Amino acid sequence: MANLTNIIPEKTIERLSEYRRTLLACHKQGITHIFSHVLAGIHGITAVQVRRDLMLIGFSSDTKKGYDVQVLIDYISNILDSPTPMHVAVVGMGHLGQAITKYFNSKGLKLRITAAFDVDPEKVGRTMDGIPVYHMDKFETTVEENDISIVIVSSPTSVAPQLVLPIINAGIRGVLNFTSTPLNFPQGIIVENYDITTLLEKVAYFVKEGDSNN
Amino acid sequence: MANLTNIIPEKTIERLSEYRRTLLACHKQGITHIFSHVLAGIHGITAVQVRRDLMLIGFSSDTKKGYDVQVLIDYISNILDSPTPMHVAVVGMGHLGQAITKYFNSKGLKLRITAAFDVDPEKVGRTMDGIPVYHMDKFETTVEENDISIVIVSSPTSVAPQLVLPIINAGIRGVLNFTSTPLNFPQGIIVENYDITTLLEKVAYFVKEGDSNN
Repeated sequence: MANLTNIIPEKTIERLSEYRRTLLACHKQGITHIFSHVLAGIHGITAVQVRRDLMLIGFSSDTKKGYDVQVLIDYISNILDSPTPMHVAVVGMGHLGQAITKYFNSKGLKLRITAAFDVDPEKVGRTMDGIPVYHMDKFETTVEENDISIVIVSSPTSVAPQLVLPIINAGIRGVLNFTSTPLNFPQGIIVENYDITTLLEKVAYFVKEGDSNN
Repeated sequence: MANLTNIIPEKTIERLSEYRRTLLACHKQGITHIFSHVLAGIHGITAVQVRRDLMLIGFSSDTKKGYDVQVLIDYISNILDSPTPMHVAVVGMGHLGQAITKYFNSKGLKLRITAAFDVDPEKVGRTMDGIPVYHMDKFETTVEENDISIVIVSSPTSVAPQLVLPIINAGIRGVLNFTSTPLNFPQGIIVENYDITTLLEKVAYFVKEGDSNN
């Protein structure tokens, strides 16, 4: 991620997203206030970390009753969300792409998966989980017509490198890559790579190290 | 992640896993040597970072021809892999679980998905992608019989909290959680939480910040 001043660190952004999800669940259950140590406990972190994250975004409150859940949801949303809706496309509607469209829950409708792309004739032209599936040939025009700024790459790993140029040409601003091949984009395009094999190897490494220290 | 001395940092472990995948691909194509700056370029990072990572694991080499690909693969494998095979189970064989079993490529057969669990009668008792699917009722016995130490949680988010106790009771040592609910495990169990919604909100945040800085 580019280091720009006034930008909140990545890990803080991740935690804010997670806090918000918890706060929305609280709100749904009619909970109106929550203490920092309770929010911390739910997330397996310290109350100090929670308070530090909220101070970083300029949020402070009278802590006698805890944080006002709705106020905090709005505050975090103001930080995380774009004022205008941002549209996302999923490239590759195999199991992973389908899992992503099912799992993704755009709470505030500010971030929405609005299109999917594939080359499988069984999928192209259909609507899957409410998302229209287009052929990759239509990528650049569809991106432009739908004002799509972010792409999730969930295609087979072998074809992922072929997506780089179309993604750049279409003016995409952010890429979330779930394949096991690193995708290189020019400076200025935000890229996050999450390969399941690497995540699993990481857990296995720390389990192994933990075992050998016992 | 626990902070233990002599343990290589998380991000370095992730990069080592990624380097190895690239090196294996090189090896497959008959490439015998690779320079640090070439490996760096493939991963969109600096040669300095690559060399620093390798120095951290005690790897150094004569750089006139570049790194010997096979030697470096073996060196990294020696760091990452357990001497004995580690077995992994996937809990939840919906789209995400199926995507995971398809995507996961255990290169050295040292880390293998050996069992899957679900409650769907259409899936239980079948073999999917070569992995036998058991009913969740059989979780603890199957984990013990198969010497499973790591679990990937890819169940619906709503049921994930119900998995915590069985996972602890079965003696699982590491958890990779892909649901959108944080799962709290006792100290000593390695847990990594990766929620797609959070990853996407993070990319969107940095795209938004990038746009507003232009």
